[in-house]
Amino acid sequence: MISVRQALSLIQKHTVTPVATEVHIEQALGQVLAKDILSPIAMPPFTQSAMDGYAIRLSTDPKYKVIGESKAGDNIGYEIKKGEAVRIFTGAVIPEYTDTVVIQEHVEIKGNNIFITKLPAKGANIRLKGEQLSKNDLVLTKGHKINEASIGLLAGLGVQKLKIFQTPKTGILVTGNELQVAGTPLIAGKIYESNSVMLKSALKRNGFGNTNIYNVRDDISYTNKVIKKALSENDVLLISGGISVGKYDFVREALLSNSVKEVFYKINQKPGKPLWFGARDKKRVFALPGNPAASLVCFYIYVLPELRRQKGFTNRDLKISSGKLSRAQENRSGKSLFLKAKVNNTSVEILDGQSSAMLHSFSQANALVLIPESKKIIEEGEKVEYLELGYE
Amino acid sequence: MISVRQALSLIQKHTVTPVATEVHIEQALGQVLAKDILSPIAMPPFTQSAMDGYAIRLSTDPKYKVIGESKAGDNIGYEIKKGEAVRIFTGAVIPEYTDTVVIQEHVEIKGNNIFITKLPAKGANIRLKGEQLSKNDLVLTKGHKINEASIGLLAGLGVQKLKIFQTPKTGILVTGNELQVAGTPLIAGKIYESNSVMLKSALKRNGFGNTNIYNVRDDISYTNKVIKKALSENDVLLISGGISVGKYDFVREALLSNSVKEVFYKINQKPGKPLWFGARDKKRVFALPGNPAASLVCFYIYVLPELRRQKGFTNRDLKISSGKLSRAQENRSGKSLFLKAKVNNTSVEILDGQSSAMLHSFSQANALVLIPESKKIIEEGEKVEYLELGYE
Repeated sequence: MISVRQALSLIQKHTVTPVATEVHIEQALGQVLAKDILSPIAMPPFTQSAMDGYAIRLSTDPKYKVIGESKAGDNIGYEIKKGEAVRIFTGAVIPEYTDTVVIQEHVEIKGNNIFITKLPAKGANIRLKGEQLSKNDLVLTKGHKINEASIGLLAGLGVQKLKIFQTPKTGILVTGNELQVAGTPLIAGKIYESNSVMLKSALKRNGFGNTNIYNVRDDISYTNKVIKKALSENDVLLISGGISVGKYDFVREALLSNSVKEVFYKINQKPGKPLWFGARDKKRVFALPGNPAASLVCFYIYVLPELRRQKGFTNRDLKISSGKLSRAQENRSGKSLFLKAKVNNTSVEILDGQSSAMLHSFSQANALVLIPESKKIIEEGEKVEYLELGYE
Repeated sequence: MISVRQALSLIQKHTVTPVATEVHIEQALGQVLAKDILSPIAMPPFTQSAMDGYAIRLSTDPKYKVIGESKAGDNIGYEIKKGEAVRIFTGAVIPEYTDTVVIQEHVEIKGNNIFITKLPAKGANIRLKGEQLSKNDLVLTKGHKINEASIGLLAGLGVQKLKIFQTPKTGILVTGNELQVAGTPLIAGKIYESNSVMLKSALKRNGFGNTNIYNVRDDISYTNKVIKKALSENDVLLISGGISVGKYDFVREALLSNSVKEVFYKINQKPGKPLWFGARDKKRVFALPGNPAASLVCFYIYVLPELRRQKGFTNRDLKISSGKLSRAQENRSGKSLFLKAKVNNTSVEILDGQSSAMLHSFSQANALVLIPESKKIIEEGEKVEYLELGYE
């Protein structure tokens, strides 16, 4: 049995290099840029007014004759002479030979003339062509995580397509004769299947949508066939409830016949001990424990970081913070513990109901507290590290 | 001109009560529960083994005769007598008259018999029917924000449909003769339209997908018609670049002819001063500044909180934290400032490029620092409040 640290390190050692792909800007939100972006145009693309007012060539005489009007989007080609002004609006092209815009609040209008009541500084209220970016300037660098502001920035430069790291395709294969699909009353001895929709939701919330779901029943040749299909259709395959002592050889056999090599099985942790991880070429397989809370813990700790690496993220996925324990917590297990907790400010309350079969405490939690295997007791008020789950 | 606080309070005063709707469990992620959920079944639904091992009626004799096997999903109906055992696996039905499961590691097998090598406590390794939830127990309360663990929990109880607060429909109406659609070289005096895809992305990332986009050109009867259509198709309408002094009466006229009442116009803040907010019945209209950075600031500060209220959220949307300013910052404007910043641990660096036309600093930011209008200077190392943008 390996430690949490060893398991993390083995998965990272077997990581798959991110693959670049081109997408339309609307598909780029939340992705990682795979290539530097240089500006295809200057920004602003022309010298423009930053305010509503009057474009002038500044002199000591407060009187200017208004010779025309320029709105945003116009391209009239005015040329200003000394003593002349053009009525101008925010975003409009600055006429030739203009050096200043006086805002409308600092002007008195008399017929065709304006009189400046408060002298602006020379150059005021003008945005120079390229003052934000010159053509071919570096706009965003490879590795940038694309947010809505990046999207607006790129759209404003006319960028429509960009290279990002593609999202690995994920599949969930559900096994277990005890599982029943919702919609009909429970048959004695059966439970409703819940891990697939739970894991699919966890994937979706973390940016991995469109997960394929596969169901198998206990039939070796059928399982073989479905695993083969799932491996061909996905980059990362999660198997739910796949590998326990009871059926170890069965699912394992199907994986081995499909040339998936076992990297590790079982981690010295609670919950989530029976995690199995395997690799074949660029395919990765996580066989998660069947108990839902254990399955979700393994997802956050092991699956999500690897999925994000494959998508080009280099930062930590779920933020690790620390806070003070509100009640003492023992750890007699000699294992690493992952405990559902509620963090308020910096006070960390371990929730009741830590059984690997129980999801209620998980649904009420916002953090997973990490207790090292070597730690026998943590006193009230002692500092602990926790993973922020990012739940609302 | 009103203050930031007044604007927030006026929007909240005009909030629209959330509306409940029924959705399938797969659509419930990230939504707010509109009705308490009672458990339709007991959980576990039957008394089951928590481990792989042997079900027994515990006695002082270490020897038990194995009379059969029970896997998860089986419902064989064994009845155990004193001195008998059933080979049992995790999740399997506990046979009648069983009181204990001894794990397989604590057993020696000799033919048809087992010998217990380490005596378990009576009742060990058994999950009693209903120990997690009885039928009709309260599972999740109204107002709960549904995460993947809640989804797993509900799926495990066989819940397929649930009442959540519906997501308000959002539309973005884009105005401005200066705007050009990407794909062709820029015409002189024009700029690429970018606010719609930026705002649509901001909406999407915050749980408001499927936004309708409307484009209008400067034609009063056409604008009237499109605003009418947009109001009928959406609950919250964002108008981009709609209302400035230059065209104030024009867009305003179209809104007024559609019976939208002005609640306020202009806020004493920078950027984002020319925000307009109006209401008609249960429709809300935000006319955002045309400058992209100003538009995005108004979105986070004013639009998003209202959208989330309508969706049933009662908590703050973007978290407010505080940190220490890495460099002194002046505020000579007499306005409230919203400054793009990068927060590392608790050090807050105000970024260069705060112009309302510039998105580059926004794309590199992870926080918006809030500087009150009354504050003239904030010293290096002084504490400031900031809004976490939630960018990766």
